[in-house]
Amino acid sequence: MDYAVFTTNNLWMMICIALVFIMHLGFSLLEIGLTRAKNTINILFKNVMILIIGILSYTLVGFSLMYPGETFAGAVFGFSNFGLLLPSNGLSADYADGAYTFYTDFLFQAMFAATAATIVSGAVAERIKLSSFLIFSILYVGFIYPITGMWKWGGGFLDKLGFYDFAGSTLVHSVGGWAALVSITLLGARIGKFKEGKISVIPGHSIPLATVGVFLLWFGWFGFNGGSVLSADPATTSLVLVTTCIAASAGGLGAFVVSYLRYRDNDLSMILNGVLGGLVGITAGANLMGVIDALAIGFISGVLIVLAVAFLDSLRLDDPVGAISVHLVCGIWGTLAVGIFGELAGWSQLLNQFAGILAVGLFCVASSFIILFGLKKSIGLRVTEIEEIEGLDAHEHGTAAYTSLGINES
Amino acid sequence: MDYAVFTTNNLWMMICIALVFIMHLGFSLLEIGLTRAKNTINILFKNVMILIIGILSYTLVGFSLMYPGETFAGAVFGFSNFGLLLPSNGLSADYADGAYTFYTDFLFQAMFAATAATIVSGAVAERIKLSSFLIFSILYVGFIYPITGMWKWGGGFLDKLGFYDFAGSTLVHSVGGWAALVSITLLGARIGKFKEGKISVIPGHSIPLATVGVFLLWFGWFGFNGGSVLSADPATTSLVLVTTCIAASAGGLGAFVVSYLRYRDNDLSMILNGVLGGLVGITAGANLMGVIDALAIGFISGVLIVLAVAFLDSLRLDDPVGAISVHLVCGIWGTLAVGIFGELAGWSQLLNQFAGILAVGLFCVASSFIILFGLKKSIGLRVTEIEEIEGLDAHEHGTAAYTSLGINES
Amino acid sequence: MDYAVFTTNNLWMMICIALVFIMHLGFSLLEIGLTRAKNTINILFKNVMILIIGILSYTLVGFSLMYPGETFAGAVFGFSNFGLLLPSNGLSADYADGAYTFYTDFLFQAMFAATAATIVSGAVAERIKLSSFLIFSILYVGFIYPITGMWKWGGGFLDKLGFYDFAGSTLVHSVGGWAALVSITLLGARIGKFKEGKISVIPGHSIPLATVGVFLLWFGWFGFNGGSVLSADPATTSLVLVTTCIAASAGGLGAFVVSYLRYRDNDLSMILNGVLGGLVGITAGANLMGVIDALAIGFISGVLIVLAVAFLDSLRLDDPVGAISVHLVCGIWGTLAVGIFGELAGWSQLLNQFAGILAVGLFCVASSFIILFGLKKSIGLRVTEIEEIEGLDAHEHGTAAYTSLGINES
Repeated sequence: MDYAVFTTNNLWMMICIALVFIMHLGFSLLEIGLTRAKNTINILFKNVMILIIGILSYTLVGFSLMYPGETFAGAVFGFSNFGLLLPSNGLSADYADGAYTFYTDFLFQAMFAATAATIVSGAVAERIKLSSFLIFSILYVGFIYPITGMWKWGGGFLDKLGFYDFAGSTLVHSVGGWAALVSITLLGARIGKFKEGKISVIPGHSIPLATVGVFLLWFGWFGFNGGSVLSADPATTSLVLVTTCIAASAGGLGAFVVSYLRYRDNDLSMILNGVLGGLVGITAGANLMGVIDALAIGFISGVLIVLAVAFLDSLRLDDPVGAISVHLVCGIWGTLAVGIFGELAGWSQLLNQFAGILAVGLFCVASSFIILFGLKKSIGLRVTEIEEIEGLDAHEHGTAAYTSLGINES
Repeated sequence: MDYAVFTTNNLWMMICIALVFIMHLGFSLLEIGLTRAKNTINILFKNVMILIIGILSYTLVGFSLMYPGETFAGAVFGFSNFGLLLPSNGLSADYADGAYTFYTDFLFQAMFAATAATIVSGAVAERIKLSSFLIFSILYVGFIYPITGMWKWGGGFLDKLGFYDFAGSTLVHSVGGWAALVSITLLGARIGKFKEGKISVIPGHSIPLATVGVFLLWFGWFGFNGGSVLSADPATTSLVLVTTCIAASAGGLGAFVVSYLRYRDNDLSMILNGVLGGLVGITAGANLMGVIDALAIGFISGVLIVLAVAFLDSLRLDDPVGAISVHLVCGIWGTLAVGIFGELAGWSQLLNQFAGILAVGLFCVASSFIILFGLKKSIGLRVTEIEEIEGLDAHEHGTAAYTSLGINES
Repeated sequence: MDYAVFTTNNLWMMICIALVFIMHLGFSLLEIGLTRAKNTINILFKNVMILIIGILSYTLVGFSLMYPGETFAGAVFGFSNFGLLLPSNGLSADYADGAYTFYTDFLFQAMFAATAATIVSGAVAERIKLSSFLIFSILYVGFIYPITGMWKWGGGFLDKLGFYDFAGSTLVHSVGGWAALVSITLLGARIGKFKEGKISVIPGHSIPLATVGVFLLWFGWFGFNGGSVLSADPATTSLVLVTTCIAASAGGLGAFVVSYLRYRDNDLSMILNGVLGGLVGITAGANLMGVIDALAIGFISGVLIVLAVAFLDSLRLDDPVGAISVHLVCGIWGTLAVGIFGELAGWSQLLNQFAGILAVGLFCVASSFIILFGLKKSIGLRVTEIEEIEGLDAHEHGTAAYTSLGINES
């Protein structure tokens, strides 16, 4: 293809890499903002390590598992080689029909890989053992995420079936969401969350940082969805940015309306999660939808957030940041929406979407259960009661995120 | 036009969309940083809602009001349709001479739209009723901003007259600034600001967050001004980024010098507002100026900031974040500067600039007065004294932005 | 060259300008996060002023010193003119073989210029006089940085010699690092850092802000290294982003492993500095390395960070943020690594790298010593003991970065 177009396409993908990168900061800030100050360093430590683990494990095995070229066992598994092998045509435009180089492809996918573990991180915050979480992350990001990713994006059986997932409502968000659900079931709630049959609110220690996190996630989603076009094609990329932003706005509005009608309050954290829900919801079909579709998908995502948060509470499942409501519930919803709205809408597509959700869900639940149950029975999943009460920063890291903000300390 | 150039132009515009988007985070952080902790959630809530309102109202009516194609009543008003109608040539390069698609155009403009209300938000912080502010925002962003915007950018009468405003010193910043001025006049000062004839300083609760806000605004301005070129043309875009950065720096320097000479202090918030003043000042003519012009415009903007802040205080007008000094005063100055410096300088241009400032100013003052006075007489503009003293977070949102930062809370 | 390719190349460089710009926010947040609340405004003030000084001094003299065209005295010095003179071909593609315009070139380099002083800022934090630091910054950024920069990037004697430094492990990071070393030697340690023969840890006041800083620096490094390709060539830019991200990850991992083995702790600030060390380390040869090279260079950088921090402590040199370990130690290591790994590896290259490190080091140590010693003997380098104990915010700025975060203040 034309060198100028190749260069432009590749440039867009590189920008999207940077944007997806900054989502990891967004996730980190959202998570610390919605939890307590005493666990802040622990959360930041986890999130920085997840990013490092994600990039390195994806370099070592992940990319080869997810895009193996050839697959086996009915297109359920494939693996090409350890490390990164430049294709025979090097970094030429032939690699991806003039859209990007091999290295650009790798790095864009590597930035996605860590996301699954980051989603889990939010759900298990304030009580999981650091060592267990890191081992889980290596296994889940290094193996489970790329295997299910291959099923669709690497040309596996779900792709052959007709399952559609543009940028990962299922392959990224639900993959994280299912493991989050399994892990909080195995871990149990934080001390004090459900006491004497009542649900306590454990307020986050910095709503400003949580808000910054959501803005950065939305910002990063320009690259997450925009880059999933896999070229800078003006028609598709601009459509995707519009559906993404409209769904995010409609998600925030939906959460506001339902939360106001139901609780008569102006709950900022609900609106923030509504925005994220809208973003997750549009992700599976961002390139297939019109403006009205995006409005509907986003608004319903926002409504689902409010209902799901209450539903999880009623089940006594403790998800400190709402990760399951955002990523699993809206991930499933967004995947189904591809069969309901937009270009592919129809019963047969809806069935394919169900099939994909089911296959990925079963595999993720089973594999995360095996890993987490194994950890629970060996080194243990949860910190001690005293560690939880005094904070993970003091016990796992021997320090504090904030020292006194007063003026005269020396 | 050539597909490669079309793709590159459109890509630049999409990046600028993301950059203007992140300005909304910048505004939010600047505003909470310069106000008190007890009103933080309220401010963040307003700013997130403004963005949502901006995008959705611009989708519904704003874009059609601002770029109606045909206009009436001497090019004072126009409206094409509700919602977004793809032009007959779809997303092809014909739409905008190969510069961007319809959807890119829409989203870039939509990101601008919310800015006007955000500017007002800063001025009315810590005392306005949430419901009144949201109603005002819907009306001002949905109708007033796009109507005056059409006068110039939609081919209206100011455009025919020869009025020039490259990226919105008047059409964006003054539009917000006039409404800010009207609203603080109607609202009155915060309790304690002017007591017993003396001016109190009410310190902001987090200067770091305010500083982050200014950095993000400058960062976003690369897209605000750079995208206003409406193509990626190397000569113009690179000139615009240079004049923008030089004016910002000169604005900071100007504010530092005057503030140091006048008060003998090293006032960070004055420098930050000086930077913003320089950015607003260069915005009307960023593509017309040389390096020396940009230095002069920016430096004078910085000087004006220091003087305007003192002047507003002397009038007993309480603007917690300096929004009027930055956006109205430097917005007017920057618009006039187009007649004084750079390619279009001359008496007749200066007259046209005056005319534009006057027309927009009259319409914005009148319309914001009608909306705000109506709200004052109906549901009320201002929270009660007890709500103001105890904080809007507690009363409007039932929660707090920060819980104790200590270690042992559980 | 083809207009489409020219436009794309120039666009990439403009994005990289914005990314390098945001590194200044990253540096600011890292520095305040790792120091005490009482000096926060002072640090932010310094960093904002450095950026302003950097852009304006680079406009006035820096760019002409660094890219003078003609050089004298054996290519050790050159100067073309005051201010910015557009080349005779204006902003055409001829200026840089179709890669970017004159203004793009200028602004990209201007964003780099301030970095050197920012590095020093971190090392001297919490005890340097504001006025002395500002004077030092003007001289160092305006004259020293562009002169040594010319030696390689402006076609000076190191370039003729065969010294290689892709994006500035030596020319940017070590230039800052040497001055940091000289300045903390002249300044002495903070009160309380080394008392009664023991090394105290003076904890930073906000680890979240420090973490945000590191994420933003990594984000900005996409532009710092990616833009140093000086075109959007897909093969080279994508390789550079991959080596950059892998080295950053490996640096974090290396610091974690050594720090865990040595101290049995999970030290977040060490991992953060390890990431930065990996970034600095890869910078000299980011375009020459393969994946394995980048892993090795990054990992060793992370190891060096842990050792260097301990070594500086043992020398009783007080570097509050680890600037010397990150920028000087890893800057030297990365420069040497060009002779050990990758395309240019070999003894003769290694010798050239030594020569470059030596020449730049001698000039920077000598010039920063002259400037700082002169300041020490005239207006003084260090604040008084009472100012240091009570905080620079109170004494240099008459205010505080944070007011009470409680709810009821009015």
